[in-house]
Amino acid sequence: MAQEGPPTETESPLHAVIPAGGSGTRLWPLSRAGHPKFLQPLFGTGHSLLQSTVDRIAPLTPAHRIHVVTGVTHAAAVARQLVAVPDENILVEPSPRDSCAAIALAAAVIAQREPDALMAVFPADHLVSEPDRFTESARAAVAVASTGRLATIGITPTRPETGYGYLHTGTPLAEVPGALRVAEFREKPSYDVAVEYLKSGHHLWNAGMFVWRVAVFLDELARQRPALHRRITRIAAAWDNPSREAVLDEEWPHLEKISVDFAVMEGAAAAGLVATVPGDFGWNDVGDFHTLGDVLPADGAGNVVIGPGEFMTVDSRHNVLVPGAGRLLAVLGARDLVVVDTDDVTLVCHRDRAQDVKKLVDQLRDRGDTAHI
Amino acid sequence: MAQEGPPTETESPLHAVIPAGGSGTRLWPLSRAGHPKFLQPLFGTGHSLLQSTVDRIAPLTPAHRIHVVTGVTHAAAVARQLVAVPDENILVEPSPRDSCAAIALAAAVIAQREPDALMAVFPADHLVSEPDRFTESARAAVAVASTGRLATIGITPTRPETGYGYLHTGTPLAEVPGALRVAEFREKPSYDVAVEYLKSGHHLWNAGMFVWRVAVFLDELARQRPALHRRITRIAAAWDNPSREAVLDEEWPHLEKISVDFAVMEGAAAAGLVATVPGDFGWNDVGDFHTLGDVLPADGAGNVVIGPGEFMTVDSRHNVLVPGAGRLLAVLGARDLVVVDTDDVTLVCHRDRAQDVKKLVDQLRDRGDTAHI
Repeated sequence: MAQEGPPTETESPLHAVIPAGGSGTRLWPLSRAGHPKFLQPLFGTGHSLLQSTVDRIAPLTPAHRIHVVTGVTHAAAVARQLVAVPDENILVEPSPRDSCAAIALAAAVIAQREPDALMAVFPADHLVSEPDRFTESARAAVAVASTGRLATIGITPTRPETGYGYLHTGTPLAEVPGALRVAEFREKPSYDVAVEYLKSGHHLWNAGMFVWRVAVFLDELARQRPALHRRITRIAAAWDNPSREAVLDEEWPHLEKISVDFAVMEGAAAAGLVATVPGDFGWNDVGDFHTLGDVLPADGAGNVVIGPGEFMTVDSRHNVLVPGAGRLLAVLGARDLVVVDTDDVTLVCHRDRAQDVKKLVDQLRDRGDTAHI
Repeated sequence: MAQEGPPTETESPLHAVIPAGGSGTRLWPLSRAGHPKFLQPLFGTGHSLLQSTVDRIAPLTPAHRIHVVTGVTHAAAVARQLVAVPDENILVEPSPRDSCAAIALAAAVIAQREPDALMAVFPADHLVSEPDRFTESARAAVAVASTGRLATIGITPTRPETGYGYLHTGTPLAEVPGALRVAEFREKPSYDVAVEYLKSGHHLWNAGMFVWRVAVFLDELARQRPALHRRITRIAAAWDNPSREAVLDEEWPHLEKISVDFAVMEGAAAAGLVATVPGDFGWNDVGDFHTLGDVLPADGAGNVVIGPGEFMTVDSRHNVLVPGAGRLLAVLGARDLVVVDTDDVTLVCHRDRAQDVKKLVDQLRDRGDTAHI
């Protein structure tokens, strides 16, 4: 445990890391393997979720301290969307190795460049409707990280959601007002358990947002996953010199595929090293069209319309509509539907089944229909 | 009243007339102003409704005695679809003047060519699932027409339909077994009245199928609508000679716009001149996607799929799906919907509202959106 209170004025600014992976199959057919959800403009602004994430981070740190970890497929699109992020901050993984490898790579590369750096992790595919409150929560989490802990921003739950993991919160942290110790990480619950969590007032959604000193995180990685730590450290040492590709070639295929929650955060919580800042800033993970419809502005009939195409609705309520460019979507007497119209695929789905859109994609993959996924 | 019994062997074969007009706006966006429903292939066979109508008539009369009355917009497509029908039997109206003008034109042109001809009228946009039973009913109607009456084929109702007119039937006709006198024509009823009609056993749907001697029909037209009769007679006299276009130009714009039911059949029924053959041959007027779904074969989950495109359904029941060519339609957890996917328009509509698709087209027309109608 280190210094108390918020970071001192002499401390260098935060490094921000944006993991940008995963295709978001529950947003199919808008999100495709080749055009994942974080690259999609989901508002009328024309800004992608990834660009919105960068915009949201702007009050916390300058663009040259923002990093993105992405895969070979989307590296070019990411680079083009984020013109202010320097080339050397776009970390391209040779193949997907789950969230621990992605975050550890960023931590190790940043530590190589600046050993006492503070680093925050903000996923590329979240929506935040109250960015000022997000900034407040992030600053509080930075203060927690400055105490030598692994900080998370937990989301105050608004419904008994079974699609997220939870943080079981403990006693308040004296050093940072509002922050709480994390007693343990909890897996995605059953519905009944989720109802209990919601009632308890002692559970937050784990949204995958973290702040820590890179050294603290890497020490925990070394303690809990020594092989992964050793390989990542070797890769990071080679990152900024001509041996990067040779070392990646040797080490990367052998990295354990594991989530950062399971690999590091659960064990760190058990060791009393994790604390959280409860956040309440209109957060949504844009996991599926149903929940997306719950956070975007609706018309008088409760219809949410996303996308560039023309549409007309008659006697239709509570639908999520994504009309395709150059096409007209006409909806008559329909309720609680998701309709997504793209050049080569049209999806019609009841909102209650929006989570299962993933299964359609799985079916198409099983059929070998790569053209549509 | 003339000879008894079916037509004698020496009588010349039937003339068949197929009115092919109207765009079928309740089948939008599959049916368009430029591609009306009668030109659409609605089965997997690749045959249009119009071609199926000609196929269905084949047992009754040879192709060179089949006539089509259509408009300037679709004349070329009609001619190309019906290769066996002679050029001179494709009667092209300069502008739409409702069903009386279309049918009277055909009757007068046929009378000009063969004064004692028997003529049958079969609309271009009906489906018949039991063609052999249709042939039987049509032959019985020919027998009725041979007695000098205006014959109709009425459809035995299967539900309290409010979208059709009805025939109120009277006493049996001695000359033709099964045929009944028609006491009166009834307009489209309210639901409660339709329920009464269904219970009564004395009401049939008016499906717009007629058989008569052209002379009998034209005499009734002269009696009830003398101006229309006079103009049509003048047009028919010029039809097969070089003055056709000049006479059409003078007379056609002044033809009364009126349905044949209202102009001729109601008055003829009141005069005791109309008789009907009840038909039960899997008839459907393909009026909207909901009723279309009721007559076409469904899969195990009750989904009816029409059209050339790819589709996948998961946990979806009783939908009518029209996937577009070169596109994939994916439907998940949806019930009782109509989904029609075309190159430039996608329609999603509850089956209960299928009749109101027409209103969407009206709205688009009001907006001046001619591209989509």
